[in-house]
Amino acid sequence: MPQGKPEAVPEDGLTTRQRRNRPLLIVHTGPMKGKSTAAFGLALRAWNQGWPIGVFQFVKAAKWKVGEETALLALGEVHEQTGRGGPVEWHKMGAGWSWSRKQGTEIDHAEAAREGWREITRRLADERHTLYVLDEFTYPMKWGWVDVGEVVEALANRPGHQHVVITGRDAAPELVAAADLVTEMTKVKHPMDTGAKGQKGIEW
Amino acid sequence: MPQGKPEAVPEDGLTTRQRRNRPLLIVHTGPMKGKSTAAFGLALRAWNQGWPIGVFQFVKAAKWKVGEETALLALGEVHEQTGRGGPVEWHKMGAGWSWSRKQGTEIDHAEAAREGWREITRRLADERHTLYVLDEFTYPMKWGWVDVGEVVEALANRPGHQHVVITGRDAAPELVAAADLVTEMTKVKHPMDTGAKGQKGIEW
Repeated sequence: MPQGKPEAVPEDGLTTRQRRNRPLLIVHTGPMKGKSTAAFGLALRAWNQGWPIGVFQFVKAAKWKVGEETALLALGEVHEQTGRGGPVEWHKMGAGWSWSRKQGTEIDHAEAAREGWREITRRLADERHTLYVLDEFTYPMKWGWVDVGEVVEALANRPGHQHVVITGRDAAPELVAAADLVTEMTKVKHPMDTGAKGQKGIEW
Repeated sequence: MPQGKPEAVPEDGLTTRQRRNRPLLIVHTGPMKGKSTAAFGLALRAWNQGWPIGVFQFVKAAKWKVGEETALLALGEVHEQTGRGGPVEWHKMGAGWSWSRKQGTEIDHAEAAREGWREITRRLADERHTLYVLDEFTYPMKWGWVDVGEVVEALANRPGHQHVVITGRDAAPELVAAADLVTEMTKVKHPMDTGAKGQKGIEW
């Protein structure tokens, strides 16, 4: 049921209202698809609340565009034109971040990932968005491009009321420990097991 | 990677193209939140493909409206006004389906669930939508209101190219067996464990 009931009331000195309004660090991990899809689904709720949304995709592919990008940016346009919902920004690492001077297909992805993270820390300090989707951000941490300890510390100290969702396989134990909500998407059955290929509208 | 590579090529006599374009039955189950959210995320992709989308929520609450409803209906309006994306319909069982003569807070939910399912079978026969989200539809099956065997048979015989996503806990084994793709959302950590309550923008 949507409202939910706590299983226990903690002795943290907070009021129910304070606990209710706690900004969350959410991690979607596990081997199965649905991690990013569920994060973009959360963005629908955020949009409806009028929250400024920032999506940061830590993907190597330069031109790849998922259907969610077009759809969420269309909702951002609805906000601009009618005032309904919230504003939406969508940034991709791919061939270089939109704000970066370094662009092109030959960019250094390790450096680009660090640059993305630096921009996110600036935005967190400025309280620019209410929902951040850091899509596939577990990989730069896994590969040692961005320091997990630094990420956990920056997120722990973020000001105001900013929700952060991080997606990707193999979330670091430190990140899981720091998160408020962690969901693992587990494969029970997948059509590619029986030789099917990805298809439009479903996989992208 | 989005395109995906099959682990094995089956001897089913189908071409790659035929397999690629197979209409899918997708089940999101497991104890954790994210099942419906990921299904609505899939609807974003479907919208971007211009597919007609039908959401059918098998929920008892009459007035409850999740943020996804407002956001996806806003995308439906974008389609109506500009031709971009696809049309979106959203129906809720709650106090009676929109097309039903039986409405009000005193409705018989078992009968309403059966009525919802009958309407879905009619729409499948008419090939009305390309993506059906049957949200929380596992429960009417679990409670014996709608016969699982009948659902599996109707879905197996659906004509054309119609994708169906069913969400909810405790998916019946027959449904899992019939599905092409099954994801289980598993709880690793949830803020309600430590006494936090649900909050707007996150839980609804």
